[in-house]
Amino acid sequence: MKSVGIGMLGAGIVGGSLIRRLVEEHSAIEAKTGLNLELRKVAVRDLAKERHPALQAALVTTDPQQVIDDPNVGLVVEVMGGLDPAGEMVLRALRAGKPVVTANKALLAARGPELFAAAESAGVPLLFEAAVGGAIPIIRPLSETLAGEQVERVIGIVNGTTNFMLTRMTEDGASYDEALAEAQALGYAEADPTADVSGADAAAKAAILASLAFGMWAGIENVYHEGIDRLTAADMKWANELGYTIKLLAIAERRSNGVSVRVYPAMLPHSHPLASIRGSTNAIFIEGPSVDELLFAGPGAGGEPTATAVLGDVIDAAREILAGAQVAPRIRLSSAELADFESVATKWYLRIEVDDEPGVLAQVAGEFGKHNVSIKSVLQEGRGRDATLMIVTHLAPESQQRAARTAIEQLVSVNSVASVVRVESPDL
Amino acid sequence: MKSVGIGMLGAGIVGGSLIRRLVEEHSAIEAKTGLNLELRKVAVRDLAKERHPALQAALVTTDPQQVIDDPNVGLVVEVMGGLDPAGEMVLRALRAGKPVVTANKALLAARGPELFAAAESAGVPLLFEAAVGGAIPIIRPLSETLAGEQVERVIGIVNGTTNFMLTRMTEDGASYDEALAEAQALGYAEADPTADVSGADAAAKAAILASLAFGMWAGIENVYHEGIDRLTAADMKWANELGYTIKLLAIAERRSNGVSVRVYPAMLPHSHPLASIRGSTNAIFIEGPSVDELLFAGPGAGGEPTATAVLGDVIDAAREILAGAQVAPRIRLSSAELADFESVATKWYLRIEVDDEPGVLAQVAGEFGKHNVSIKSVLQEGRGRDATLMIVTHLAPESQQRAARTAIEQLVSVNSVASVVRVESPDL
Repeated sequence: MKSVGIGMLGAGIVGGSLIRRLVEEHSAIEAKTGLNLELRKVAVRDLAKERHPALQAALVTTDPQQVIDDPNVGLVVEVMGGLDPAGEMVLRALRAGKPVVTANKALLAARGPELFAAAESAGVPLLFEAAVGGAIPIIRPLSETLAGEQVERVIGIVNGTTNFMLTRMTEDGASYDEALAEAQALGYAEADPTADVSGADAAAKAAILASLAFGMWAGIENVYHEGIDRLTAADMKWANELGYTIKLLAIAERRSNGVSVRVYPAMLPHSHPLASIRGSTNAIFIEGPSVDELLFAGPGAGGEPTATAVLGDVIDAAREILAGAQVAPRIRLSSAELADFESVATKWYLRIEVDDEPGVLAQVAGEFGKHNVSIKSVLQEGRGRDATLMIVTHLAPESQQRAARTAIEQLVSVNSVASVVRVESPDL
Repeated sequence: MKSVGIGMLGAGIVGGSLIRRLVEEHSAIEAKTGLNLELRKVAVRDLAKERHPALQAALVTTDPQQVIDDPNVGLVVEVMGGLDPAGEMVLRALRAGKPVVTANKALLAARGPELFAAAESAGVPLLFEAAVGGAIPIIRPLSETLAGEQVERVIGIVNGTTNFMLTRMTEDGASYDEALAEAQALGYAEADPTADVSGADAAAKAAILASLAFGMWAGIENVYHEGIDRLTAADMKWANELGYTIKLLAIAERRSNGVSVRVYPAMLPHSHPLASIRGSTNAIFIEGPSVDELLFAGPGAGGEPTATAVLGDVIDAAREILAGAQVAPRIRLSSAELADFESVATKWYLRIEVDDEPGVLAQVAGEFGKHNVSIKSVLQEGRGRDATLMIVTHLAPESQQRAARTAIEQLVSVNSVASVVRVESPDL
C-alpha cells in the first residue's frame, strides 16, 4: 500500500470540500490512482464553528504548527487563505521538507519568489493548480505542456464574480448595484466585494499566469489593474451595438519592450471565444506561434471545483514523494523585462458627461489632438445638462490617453469622464 | 548545465517541426526551463527524401536501433507513426531504461497495456500528450489535475479532418465529396482518408481518453465506431432546422452497466459548447460532479501544434530524468467493466429513401413498433420514387434500433436507409 499522510491548514469552503472528498472518496481515489491518501491533521480557526461531519475530532487542531510538525504528515495543503499566517506556515512546511499544495493566489502573487526558492532548496514540490481558474487545468498546461512554446499572449476571464455581474448587466440591463446585490445573494461576491470588483483578485492571477507563460516573475506590484465599478448598463448596451462585449480581462503579453501584465475591463468582438463566456465561468485563451489559439473554460471558483484542482495536486505531489524525486523547479524566475504600462498602446472607449453647449465636442477633440490621440468615432446621446459623448480612440500609448483624459476632465463643459473601457481588438 | 540527449525515431511533419524547434529555439528553451536539450540522433526512413536544414548530417541514420543504443541518447521521441516497427522500438527503448515520448495514438490504442507495463517495470515515463488533441493539453489534465475527479463523461471532437468537412457541409452546403476533396487539397486529409472518415482515428483517441478518465483500459477493439461517409448536406440542413449541428463525436461515459466508449456522427444542440467548434479545431468537453463542465479547444493536428505537445513532454521527461525519480505510473489499468454498445440507449435520426406509395409510412412505423422503438417525429420530403422520410426516434437500446433498421431496409417500398445520426441531447 502506497500511503501518504495529508495535513491541512484551513477547513473553510474549499477545505471542507477536500475533507469530504478525502474521506468519502478514499476508496475510489485509491482504485483510480493506487494511492492511499490518509487525512492526518487539520488546523481550523475555530473548533466550535468549523465542524465537518466527515472529520474525526481527534484530527482537528487550532494550531497550524501542529499540522506541520506531525510526523505522520508527509504533505501539507494550505487552504486557509490570506497572507498571514499562511505565508509563514507554507515556508515552515517547505523548510521541513514537506511538499505543499496551495490554492492561495494572493499569497503566491505577494511572495512567490521567496516560496519557490524555499521549495527549490528543500527539493520538494510547491503546487498551485487551484490558484488560477479553479478546476480549469491551466497551471500544468502552461508550465509543462507549453513549456517549449514561445507564448505570445495569455488573456483570461479569471474572476467569476465580475463575469457574472457583467453578464447580468449585458444580457438583462441590470445596473452595477443590482448585479452586485445579486452576486452577493448567490454567494458569488463577498460582503466586501472590493478584491473582486477592483480587479485586485484578477491581478494576482494575472501575475501568476504571466510568470508561467513567460518564465519571469511579474510581481503583483507591477500589474496595473482597474475594476468594473464605474461601468453602467449603458456602456454594455453601446458596446453591444458596436458588436462588442465588455469583459474584465487579465492580460499577459510579450511586447517589443518587455512583458506587459494588466487587468482592466475591455471590449472584445462578439466573435472572440472569450466574448461568449457567461456567468461565473472562467476561461483562459493562449496564443502562440505554434499552438495558434488554445481555449480552456470551466467553473473558476467554488468549493467543489477548487477542491478538485487541489486534490489533483495532492495526488501529483504524493506520486512525487513516493518516487523519491529531488523535484526540479517548475517555475524559473528569469529577469525578463516588464513593459511599463504607460508605454503600452491601447484604444480607449470613453463615456463623457458634458453640458451640451456649442463647441464642447471641439474642446474635447482638441484635447485629444494636443496629446496626439486620434479619434476613431464619436456618438452623442441626449441634450442639455444630460448629454453624453461616447468616444472611441485609435491606438495611443497609455500615458497619452491618460493625459488627454485628465485634460478633458478639467474642461468647464465636461462634468465627468464617467467610464473608460479599453478595446482589445485590431479592428474597431 | 543540465543536459539531456534526445534521440528521435522519425522525421516527418511532426518530427521535422520538433527538429527545427530543438535546434532553432535551443537557447530560448534553455532560458525558460533551465534544460539543455541536445539532439543526438535521428532515424529517418529515407536519407535522400528526408532532409532537414536544421539537422547536421552526422546525426542522421536510417537504423532506429542506433538511436536507442546511442549512449548519449537519454530520451527517445517516437514520431514515426504506425504500428510497426514503432511498437517494437518503443518497447526496446523502455526496456533500455530510456523514457519515451510518443504522439502515436494508433500504437497506444493497439498496444497500450503492454507499453505501460514496460514503462512501469523500467521505472521510466512514457508520455503521450500529443496523441490526442494535438497541442491541446488533455492527457495531463485528465491524468493529473482531474485524477481525483469521478469523471462522468468525456465528449470530444478529436479528428480535425472530419470536423473541417462537416463544417463545410453544414455552413456552405458542400457535398461529402466536395468537402473531402477540399480537405485533401488543403492537406487536412490523406490521399487515403479512410482512417479519418471511418472514425477509426477518433476511436483510437476515444480509447486513450477513456483509459485516462476512467482508469481502465478500453482497448481499441471494444470501441464502436461509425464514420461520416454516409452523411449528406441534406442531413446537415435538416439537423440545422431542428436546432442541431452534426459532429463526429468520441464519447466515453460512465453508465450503470459499465463504461461506454464509442464514436459516431451525432446531433448536438446549437447551444452545446462543442456545436460551435468549427473547421479543423479539436475540442474536448469533460463532465464531472465537482468540476461541472470543462472545455478545452485548440488546433488538434498539424506539425507545429503537435510538436509543441511533444516538446512539452520532452521537457517534462527531462525534468524527471534529472530528478532521478523512479517514476510512478500515471495510468493504472483496472478492470472496470465496459458497457456493451448494444445495450447503450440512444436516439436515432434516420434518413430513409422510399417509394411514395400509400402505406409506406405505416409499414416503416410498424417495424419500429415491433422492435419497441417509439417515434418522436416524422418528416416526408418529395414524392414518387424520390421521396425521403426523416425520422427521429425516442431513446431505445442500440440493439433494438439496429434491428428495426434492418427490418426497414428489407421492406419492398424502402430503397435504402441512407444515413443514421444519433442524437446526443436530452431534449430532442
